[in-house]
Amino acid sequence: MHAFRSHTCADLTKADVGQTVRLSGWVHRIRDHGGVLFIDLRDHYGVTQLLCDSDSPVFSDVEKLRSEWCIRIDGEVKARDASLVNPKLPTGEVEVFIRDMEVLGAAEELPLIVFGDQEYPEETRLRYRFLDLRREAMQRNMTLRSDVVSSIRKRMWAQNFREFQTPIITASSPEGARDFLVPSRLHPGKFYALPQAPQQFKQLIMVSGFDKYFQIAPCFRDEDPRADRSPTDFYQLDLEMSFVSQQDIFDTIQPVMQGVFEEFGGGRKVDSVWPQISYRDAALWYGTDKPDLRNPIKMEVVSDHFRDSGFAIFAKLLEQDGTEIRAIPAPGGGSRKFCDRMNAFAQKDGLPGMGYIFWRDGDDGMEAAGPLAKNIGPERTEAIRLQLGLGVGDAAFFLGGKPSNFEAVAGRARVVIGNELGLTEQDRFAFAWIVDFPMYEADEESGKVDFSHNPFSMPQGGMDVLKGDPLDVLGYQYDLACNGYELVSGAIRNHKPEIMFKAFELAGYGEEEVRKRFGGMVNAFRFGAPPHGGCAAGIDRMVMLLADTANIREVIMFPMNQRAEDLMMNAPSDATSDQLMELGLRVLPKEN
Amino acid sequence: MHAFRSHTCADLTKADVGQTVRLSGWVHRIRDHGGVLFIDLRDHYGVTQLLCDSDSPVFSDVEKLRSEWCIRIDGEVKARDASLVNPKLPTGEVEVFIRDMEVLGAAEELPLIVFGDQEYPEETRLRYRFLDLRREAMQRNMTLRSDVVSSIRKRMWAQNFREFQTPIITASSPEGARDFLVPSRLHPGKFYALPQAPQQFKQLIMVSGFDKYFQIAPCFRDEDPRADRSPTDFYQLDLEMSFVSQQDIFDTIQPVMQGVFEEFGGGRKVDSVWPQISYRDAALWYGTDKPDLRNPIKMEVVSDHFRDSGFAIFAKLLEQDGTEIRAIPAPGGGSRKFCDRMNAFAQKDGLPGMGYIFWRDGDDGMEAAGPLAKNIGPERTEAIRLQLGLGVGDAAFFLGGKPSNFEAVAGRARVVIGNELGLTEQDRFAFAWIVDFPMYEADEESGKVDFSHNPFSMPQGGMDVLKGDPLDVLGYQYDLACNGYELVSGAIRNHKPEIMFKAFELAGYGEEEVRKRFGGMVNAFRFGAPPHGGCAAGIDRMVMLLADTANIREVIMFPMNQRAEDLMMNAPSDATSDQLMELGLRVLPKEN
Repeated sequence: MHAFRSHTCADLTKADVGQTVRLSGWVHRIRDHGGVLFIDLRDHYGVTQLLCDSDSPVFSDVEKLRSEWCIRIDGEVKARDASLVNPKLPTGEVEVFIRDMEVLGAAEELPLIVFGDQEYPEETRLRYRFLDLRREAMQRNMTLRSDVVSSIRKRMWAQNFREFQTPIITASSPEGARDFLVPSRLHPGKFYALPQAPQQFKQLIMVSGFDKYFQIAPCFRDEDPRADRSPTDFYQLDLEMSFVSQQDIFDTIQPVMQGVFEEFGGGRKVDSVWPQISYRDAALWYGTDKPDLRNPIKMEVVSDHFRDSGFAIFAKLLEQDGTEIRAIPAPGGGSRKFCDRMNAFAQKDGLPGMGYIFWRDGDDGMEAAGPLAKNIGPERTEAIRLQLGLGVGDAAFFLGGKPSNFEAVAGRARVVIGNELGLTEQDRFAFAWIVDFPMYEADEESGKVDFSHNPFSMPQGGMDVLKGDPLDVLGYQYDLACNGYELVSGAIRNHKPEIMFKAFELAGYGEEEVRKRFGGMVNAFRFGAPPHGGCAAGIDRMVMLLADTANIREVIMFPMNQRAEDLMMNAPSDATSDQLMELGLRVLPKEN
Repeated sequence: MHAFRSHTCADLTKADVGQTVRLSGWVHRIRDHGGVLFIDLRDHYGVTQLLCDSDSPVFSDVEKLRSEWCIRIDGEVKARDASLVNPKLPTGEVEVFIRDMEVLGAAEELPLIVFGDQEYPEETRLRYRFLDLRREAMQRNMTLRSDVVSSIRKRMWAQNFREFQTPIITASSPEGARDFLVPSRLHPGKFYALPQAPQQFKQLIMVSGFDKYFQIAPCFRDEDPRADRSPTDFYQLDLEMSFVSQQDIFDTIQPVMQGVFEEFGGGRKVDSVWPQISYRDAALWYGTDKPDLRNPIKMEVVSDHFRDSGFAIFAKLLEQDGTEIRAIPAPGGGSRKFCDRMNAFAQKDGLPGMGYIFWRDGDDGMEAAGPLAKNIGPERTEAIRLQLGLGVGDAAFFLGGKPSNFEAVAGRARVVIGNELGLTEQDRFAFAWIVDFPMYEADEESGKVDFSHNPFSMPQGGMDVLKGDPLDVLGYQYDLACNGYELVSGAIRNHKPEIMFKAFELAGYGEEEVRKRFGGMVNAFRFGAPPHGGCAAGIDRMVMLLADTANIREVIMFPMNQRAEDLMMNAPSDATSDQLMELGLRVLPKEN
């Protein structure tokens, strides 16, 4: 017989009754029924009930067992009494009578109980991660993550992509965040950097003629801590293709993402129609470029109804350039109590408040209520109602000013309204491509033009369009939004050196600066670069959505805490003076 | 029609004749047959011959094309004349007459020609890696590497392993080499380290109850440059299992490795019987713990034949403690010329020389020749011949002294003899498990006992054996040798804290030191650790063997050069003073 097990703890069924078996695992739970011990033995695969009483030669040893001891037992499979069968457990029809037992690994008093759902502070969970990970939810999350990544790989291979590994110890790749640096010993005083993303390398792979690349790529950004992101590194499905247009990328990645969500969504609905929404429309309709389309609310411009109206605040606002009034329709929100709560929400979020109108049954039929309705009068109120398609029991909220000042709040209000009114569908994954991102944006104060997103994207219209107003230039750049999160980001790349230099020039970067910062890639483009494009999908985020958690540390095996410390392994820590000497470095005193 | 291609450059056959097609790719080669241009258009998938003459509306543009320009063409598929069919090319029966052409990416004068086999200095190849990678051999090597890694994953999944990613920014993992450090910005003056291997993490995954783990894991070691290794990082197939014995690990990894070598070996023979050879036997028989078993030569101890013999050097040597005489049989090496060459080899390798005997046809039948035979006389000579099973035309070489002083040279001599005599089979992968490694070794001079390999291995015999002579302790530790290389290394781990502390104590490490260096893991073992073990297989090495190259840079997409520099991306480089300030570091002046 095998030294440790003839079966796993998920294997035994009624068919095995009478057999002598060997199991190994952890003591999950012990119940003492007056001289009869019941032990749930757990391994990665399942749980099997063990039984022991004084008839067993090892009863006195078994009595000493405690939770989370790792043991090996030999015993005899018995059928449970019909009344004791546990239909929820695959092994629920049997139990094993212990004849022999060996302690493989004893456990001291536990700082964290594995059995059950007791909550612990995150620091405890991370310090004793090896116990935390034994808990059912964490076993499930880690298994899910692993299976999602495998599924992605299989789906990419099925589309004839090959995975290539790009360097991890490399040069700085300016992606907007801070690099982690790695001091060089062979070149003291010089530094490598960990890649923020394999952006330049994947483009170089295309220039090298490989056609279709992907990688489950570790990315490193030295970021300030936030609950929903890792302070050090994260994984992305990184892909790139040559000889493609934007639609080719969409047609490639949609089946992968949709397939993964269908496979692991646990029956939640997965949209198969992924609308393409321009960045401008997304901002108007949803107040964000990562809209949650499970929420049916779509905002609209209603400026005309307020121009020269009796509602002086909006009427005066509209006299200024670049201002608008927008409405958030709220079907079913037609009560003063709800409207007041939403108004308070907007105030808490830094706005003077949101005006509102709601419609109710009045003495003479439908009646519009709220101070705003009185100010603008019944005709304008009715016109608004008709535009928004609302009726009795519904409400509408209004925000005005320069869109850039209120769009984000409007977007958040839309989310809250959708949730509070139960409009936002649960158990569904809704996707949308956000397209036509502007290449450039102007700083509000200085007016200085800079790239709004990825500087490597191809401008729509190529060189010609770069001769006009930079703020009118749209890029072949796209994001995939899912349930309010950005899941994928990508672009068709600017592969022509002359267009790239011109694009950077508009953002104030001279040719020399571009060569200095992106020399590897720009140099390669001089030697027959193919048109290419791609995208990157956040693995951690996908798994978080599938596991239905907002805490990234629930889906990473050994995460840092929010101060970027590993409490279990004790990182970061001091370097030895020998190490520093070899690297040609000195640590500055704290007082510095 | 698609913007860039209706077919790849490997797709078109006779069945497509008459069709209008669109192709994109690189100008591989241009031949001008007096007003008719033949262009080989190349993409990742293949090559298609294009044709253009003055009948084409774009002839004048096509005339301007040069090698490695990236173009898109529209044209008409034509059958080649029977005499011009190229049977070696899948597209060899057709050619495409160019009707339209667009330059997608022009190329400047090339520092490296893609077409053909011209050799370039490695610095040129690395600086222009994107051109080097377009060459057929590099496309093949990178494709091979990617396919090998995919195949490994599929084989691991098929055995119910899950892949889990372990941290890359973490604490120092003392594995014998230097760590790469990563300064922390949030904790200035403190450092993370890049993992030399996921050793502690994979063991923690077992303590966390996951049962079967693997990972294609990046490993980071700050090593001094050597041709056959990367100075920064490498990849390994890392695996670990709970509730297993050594044989379980062998039974798990053999089908994976054997399968991969069969799949990608290109018809080379792959041994399916993998002998288990003790470390001691390997040293004796092959002079190394990574023997090349394609070479049938097995060394033997022949001390008795030289004791008190007329060959004074060996006879006197044997009077000293711990000395031995060993023979390297050399079937077919029976000529003075060969024997002298081998003797010279040993002298070049730092030995006084190798004595030899060879057997030839003499006047009275078989005759033993060489000075050694004369010294020890015919009886002893014949006894040696019989022990080694040699005959006319064969030779034997002899080395004497303390085995540790000559074993390595003997091993190298065995390799040279096997190669020179054509005994070493080509086109074959021969595997052997080397087992029963000693846990400890004593420093020759100081006598100080230290771990000879991995300190985390379980001693054979557990706690009991640690009470005897450390130098007698064998570990459950093993390597897989293939064709003279170490391909896999692994162990059954020491999962019992008390045995671990005792094992470290023998090597002179106190409990506090162990807790300090391996705290994460040792702490975890206090809470019900399962017996576990695993191994790691070098991916780069596997691909090198399959690709039949001794240069690791032939199988890595973007390798560092041997000075650990990336010439294409310019790494390492200076950090900015802002970066250093944030990290709390100062670079010491060079003169320091």
